[in-house]
Amino acid sequence: MRKTFLEETVLFVSIIKWAILATLVGLVVGLSTTVFLKALGLSGAAVQGHRYYFLLLPLALFLSSLLVKHLAPDAEGHGTEKVIEAVHKRWGKIKLMVVPVKLVATIITLAFGGSAGKEGPCAQIGAGMASSMADLLKLTKEDRKKLVICGISAGFAAVFGTPIAGALFAVEVLVLGKVLQEVLFPALVAAIVSFQIATSFGIHYFHQAILLPRFSQLLLMEMLLAGVFFGLVALLLVEALKLAETYAKKLPVGKPWLGLVGGAILAGLALIFSPLYLGLGVETLEAAINGGPVPPLAFLGKILFTAITLSMGGSGGILTPVFFIGSTAGSALAQLFHLNTGAFAAIGMVALLAGAANTPIAASVMAIEILGPQIGPYAAIACLVSYTAAGHRSVYASQILGVSKS
Amino acid sequence: MRKTFLEETVLFVSIIKWAILATLVGLVVGLSTTVFLKALGLSGAAVQGHRYYFLLLPLALFLSSLLVKHLAPDAEGHGTEKVIEAVHKRWGKIKLMVVPVKLVATIITLAFGGSAGKEGPCAQIGAGMASSMADLLKLTKEDRKKLVICGISAGFAAVFGTPIAGALFAVEVLVLGKVLQEVLFPALVAAIVSFQIATSFGIHYFHQAILLPRFSQLLLMEMLLAGVFFGLVALLLVEALKLAETYAKKLPVGKPWLGLVGGAILAGLALIFSPLYLGLGVETLEAAINGGPVPPLAFLGKILFTAITLSMGGSGGILTPVFFIGSTAGSALAQLFHLNTGAFAAIGMVALLAGAANTPIAASVMAIEILGPQIGPYAAIACLVSYTAAGHRSVYASQILGVSKS
Repeated sequence: MRKTFLEETVLFVSIIKWAILATLVGLVVGLSTTVFLKALGLSGAAVQGHRYYFLLLPLALFLSSLLVKHLAPDAEGHGTEKVIEAVHKRWGKIKLMVVPVKLVATIITLAFGGSAGKEGPCAQIGAGMASSMADLLKLTKEDRKKLVICGISAGFAAVFGTPIAGALFAVEVLVLGKVLQEVLFPALVAAIVSFQIATSFGIHYFHQAILLPRFSQLLLMEMLLAGVFFGLVALLLVEALKLAETYAKKLPVGKPWLGLVGGAILAGLALIFSPLYLGLGVETLEAAINGGPVPPLAFLGKILFTAITLSMGGSGGILTPVFFIGSTAGSALAQLFHLNTGAFAAIGMVALLAGAANTPIAASVMAIEILGPQIGPYAAIACLVSYTAAGHRSVYASQILGVSKS
Repeated sequence: MRKTFLEETVLFVSIIKWAILATLVGLVVGLSTTVFLKALGLSGAAVQGHRYYFLLLPLALFLSSLLVKHLAPDAEGHGTEKVIEAVHKRWGKIKLMVVPVKLVATIITLAFGGSAGKEGPCAQIGAGMASSMADLLKLTKEDRKKLVICGISAGFAAVFGTPIAGALFAVEVLVLGKVLQEVLFPALVAAIVSFQIATSFGIHYFHQAILLPRFSQLLLMEMLLAGVFFGLVALLLVEALKLAETYAKKLPVGKPWLGLVGGAILAGLALIFSPLYLGLGVETLEAAINGGPVPPLAFLGKILFTAITLSMGGSGGILTPVFFIGSTAGSALAQLFHLNTGAFAAIGMVALLAGAANTPIAASVMAIEILGPQIGPYAAIACLVSYTAAGHRSVYASQILGVSKS
């Protein structure tokens, strides 16, 4: 009886403590993510009115790289990756300087057409804020680690408008094959608060209910095979990012000058092929999910543009490109076999996330949050197959292998 | 390159192998669960027309206990618990005889008013079928274990009509604080197939979209505190089950005669108080979620009736009572503080599952599958808090402690 009372007191105190700490993280991250998203929208609108705005890309990548190199070398790379590294190697310790530098560098990269995502910076901004908060409150290093995971969660939730998926992503992305269930409660509180803050400041999110035909074993088999395809696309993306990194290091130009080269290549490719693969590419992603036509090889184009941007001085995340690549790959697959393009694009979006980031549960729940519960079982099948088929690799090199997939 | 090809071949073969095996489990479990549910419905309709049908409870519990004791002692207890034990101690080995015995014993118990659940037997039937299938196909013991987990998943999915939650439950329930992500794919395939089989044979499921007011930090705080309450109710339930077990063993009557005593106590209690707590109690559960009035102490009544039934010769699961107890507790809490009774009953249902079975992710997803996505974040908060507040105990005594909660 006394033992039970003691146990309950400890657990109750822990619940209250983490509810408060996570709410604080949610507030801070919600506000800073809102600032970032608003600034991103304004800068994009200011710059992208001109048809050849992307010709300034060499300058933009140079500036972004210069900023990062001199002010906060920790802000390098795509955000979430650096946070995972900080959690595993430094108990989540992240310098506060990372926050403004990452914010500005990413806005410069994206506004002028660099191909990258908006969630990575938010995760890094969130984690940086959380880490500084932990220092300010003199928390233990175990608690700082938890708080930083809340930062990832809150950033994801505010960027994509999916609080449950955000929390699941944060506890799934650190170790391949493992879910850090003990951090799920604070991660969820932070995610909900941050998402609500962003909503209340007028940030809008993409939602689209996908209606599918009545269940058939055939459709399930199609989704399963599509999952294998998305897993292989995830593999291709990870290998392309690695390859680009290796080649970029071999070039006789160092950072920040590498940005000039990378920007020039991107601008040239955009002139020759299409500016479709520049920036976030949200219009193309949404068009694909709405069932509209997209170029069949769009996913390869986006892989190329993203690999160049991220390896040659650009700053930004990886998930918005992942969604673009997944949805256009799904649309292409559906066109090839005369299937429902919108549904396969939607499934592709989340299945590529599952395969590339090794977060099948978060990806399945994200499908339900964005696309409605009806698509749930199909999305979950495609996500789990893609996750398995992608093998033991990740867009996040710092992810630790926990449990093998087969 | 060659290494990648080899890795991909292994993973691809594993995907196909488990898609086929899990589909087989889904088919077999879907069919046997349908038979069980139909038989349960028919027997209930035949018996419960009479007002004092429950006066035959002593005989029913005696018969149920007799059957189990002589034909399949492994079929004792509430089903899922035995399956968890088999997975941890005998690589999932379960005798086929368990299947018909559990089926008949549970139908006798429930039809005459024993307070128990219908999911445990289905999990045990599913796991027993899967184990025999593994022997028939001469699978390794590691593969048998996976297949048995698919059996739990398929049983849960077909009983409650929630395939994703079923699969998550099966991979969450074996080890406290851990998710067996590597079995999630086959578990989900089995769950979807089994659910679809049951649906196609006309099994209906309870679905009720719960609409909540606009987000407020207050509502979130209320859900958080409600989560603490549900966690404590879960604690009470687990302790009551243990206590009843201890007292039943101390009685000078052995099985199957214990059934006579237990049945007599239950019939007496039903005469004195109310027959409300007999059987599955689905009407009360649904009334609570629809916002209807329920007796404020109904959850205590159900805990009492269930503890007696399961410790004194009755056969059946624990989750249907868990849902009854959770929803009526939620309704009582909401009445006390003048809150939305339907919403808190719905949250209580899943939050008690999270706390009693230590499956917060499955419970949150179940909320979305049954109650719609709008309730998702609130349900997830309540589930995670309840899970934490319930401490390191479980309605499944064989559940292994993986990771501590605080």
